[in-house]
Amino acid sequence: MLDRFLVPEKDRVFVESEKMRRATIEIFEKCGQSPADAALSADVLMTSDLRGCESHGVSNQLRVYVQMYGDREINPTPNVRVTRETDVTANLDGDEGLGLHVLPKAMELAIEKAEKHGMGAVTVHNSRHIGMLAYHSMMALEHDMIGLTTTAGNPMSMVPTHAGEKMFATNPWAWAAPARNEAPFVFDIATTQVAGNKLYLAQRVGAPMEPAWVADAEGTPIMESAQLPDEYMSLPFGGTREQGSHKGYGFAATCEILSTILSGMGPGFLMPKTPRPLMGHYVQAIKIDGFTDPDQFKDDMDRFLGGLRNAKPAPGHDRVVYAGLPEAEEVEIRQHEGIPYHREVIEWFESIKAELGLGFELV
Amino acid sequence: MLDRFLVPEKDRVFVESEKMRRATIEIFEKCGQSPADAALSADVLMTSDLRGCESHGVSNQLRVYVQMYGDREINPTPNVRVTRETDVTANLDGDEGLGLHVLPKAMELAIEKAEKHGMGAVTVHNSRHIGMLAYHSMMALEHDMIGLTTTAGNPMSMVPTHAGEKMFATNPWAWAAPARNEAPFVFDIATTQVAGNKLYLAQRVGAPMEPAWVADAEGTPIMESAQLPDEYMSLPFGGTREQGSHKGYGFAATCEILSTILSGMGPGFLMPKTPRPLMGHYVQAIKIDGFTDPDQFKDDMDRFLGGLRNAKPAPGHDRVVYAGLPEAEEVEIRQHEGIPYHREVIEWFESIKAELGLGFELV
Repeated sequence: MLDRFLVPEKDRVFVESEKMRRATIEIFEKCGQSPADAALSADVLMTSDLRGCESHGVSNQLRVYVQMYGDREINPTPNVRVTRETDVTANLDGDEGLGLHVLPKAMELAIEKAEKHGMGAVTVHNSRHIGMLAYHSMMALEHDMIGLTTTAGNPMSMVPTHAGEKMFATNPWAWAAPARNEAPFVFDIATTQVAGNKLYLAQRVGAPMEPAWVADAEGTPIMESAQLPDEYMSLPFGGTREQGSHKGYGFAATCEILSTILSGMGPGFLMPKTPRPLMGHYVQAIKIDGFTDPDQFKDDMDRFLGGLRNAKPAPGHDRVVYAGLPEAEEVEIRQHEGIPYHREVIEWFESIKAELGLGFELV
Repeated sequence: MLDRFLVPEKDRVFVESEKMRRATIEIFEKCGQSPADAALSADVLMTSDLRGCESHGVSNQLRVYVQMYGDREINPTPNVRVTRETDVTANLDGDEGLGLHVLPKAMELAIEKAEKHGMGAVTVHNSRHIGMLAYHSMMALEHDMIGLTTTAGNPMSMVPTHAGEKMFATNPWAWAAPARNEAPFVFDIATTQVAGNKLYLAQRVGAPMEPAWVADAEGTPIMESAQLPDEYMSLPFGGTREQGSHKGYGFAATCEILSTILSGMGPGFLMPKTPRPLMGHYVQAIKIDGFTDPDQFKDDMDRFLGGLRNAKPAPGHDRVVYAGLPEAEEVEIRQHEGIPYHREVIEWFESIKAELGLGFELV
């Protein structure tokens, strides 16, 4: 992440990841999730926080989930079932359960199919937020598979190139591929210029926007560096047409096709407009052994990722990284030093602990 | 395409597509291709030119192919064979044949596997240039499937974010998905800011670059609007890190993993550095019926694409388009009016006709 999204030093409270994990499990169980689902849901959020992807960890989303469970907008005990299936494909009804624990079941099924046949893909409809996409794609790694995850909901974020209204969510993609000794390749991005959660995070830390990060309420890209305005629409990555926003728009549309249309929900912009939409997902597992020798693949990945990591840097930069490398480094640091949360986040945990009568201790 | 890439009006020569197709078939046959392969190769190039994607039509690439056949760098009669196979995956040895006619065979195999099992994916190694990716992805459409194509070669184009050397080709992606009455969704893009062929085309028509389209020879993004310098490196889409170049870089790396590493060739930047590299490809066909009812899917696609097409435009714009719509409109126009080529292209055809002793007539 860009530095501007980091919690300012004066506001940082370090918490051991296992303490935060236990607190999060307690909260999910209180919301009605089974112990297994609560542990899985917490694992998705803690994996985000350990990887330095705090935009998708406990800071932003957990309070939203708690409110949605309170409003009975998420089904705490969904009956996830297969509605269509072939040798290598399936469509699941998520029964309005939280994607954090619903989607890993879909990826498990995709992996099982890939193990037998070489590849597997599963869509999910009527589901909810899945957290950091990388978590689900990374499930494929230990099986010597490449993982893909994409997800879409309703049109609360992105204005297409040259349009004057929102038509998409942030429609993110995540690919993961294993290596032998190098940190695995894990590429997880929103098709907006900036992930929605990072915009909220920037508002919290008072960070300025870059030109062409968002459009005004009419759809015109804001080309000044400024604070986030009250009313805005996220631009597709690229920002302006001249800088390739049609590419962000196109990947967003492809995500929509795989996630909501292929899963049978129809396009998000025709669903009821709510900040808490039902979502569709698409996961795919590609078994390396179906194409080439997995040992050769992992050796080649080491040569590939090592080559990128050791590439000559441009003037003013001290190194080149690849997707997944800084995150793997951050895990090492945070497992020892704890995770730096904004004190406002810790205050929320204390208040919800009192409100729900829980017993966890963060410090 | 942006207007600046169009052939200037004063230099335009209109040619009927069928005349250009016959000329192109004659040239490919003279290069040693079988009549069937020559017809297929010409179809890929003419489909580009009809769709208004002249960067990938006969104007730029055909002369390169002819030279490569003359230098025996392309095998005119490749023995394309399966080197690994499962129910839904395969890896093909392209035997150094031209990707224009090798890759359709890979996509046919992917479609056949998807027809039986719900999905199919095929990699190709030791192949050559495949032309416009959309052609191959679009092969899936008539089978009620979604098509994906991606391809990589050696590092002649893209400098990764913050790097000071080229590590990638233009590493493009193309997705295609069918609709019922709307023009199909066809999304075909380079992961560089601008496709390599479009940079050559811009040089031919003398069009200026936008800021952050390319980096200088050290890797620093050129932020002025200027003519293309002699020495440059293409930036990943996004351009600068602040504008999301790590997204273009990540999709380029994913392309490399699927195309060259999964096909067993190893990363392109470790292959011999030549402007005429061997290439790896990845194609995938996704059978809609494996996830949802294809009739419902196509109706939903009409509602989706129609909704985008009829979205409110931003101030200063008269309409919103989706990927594949302008290209479908261009086909209608060019089938009637002919294809506008730069007169320099027509001169090349006349000279190659004389050189190879061919009989075609363009006008």
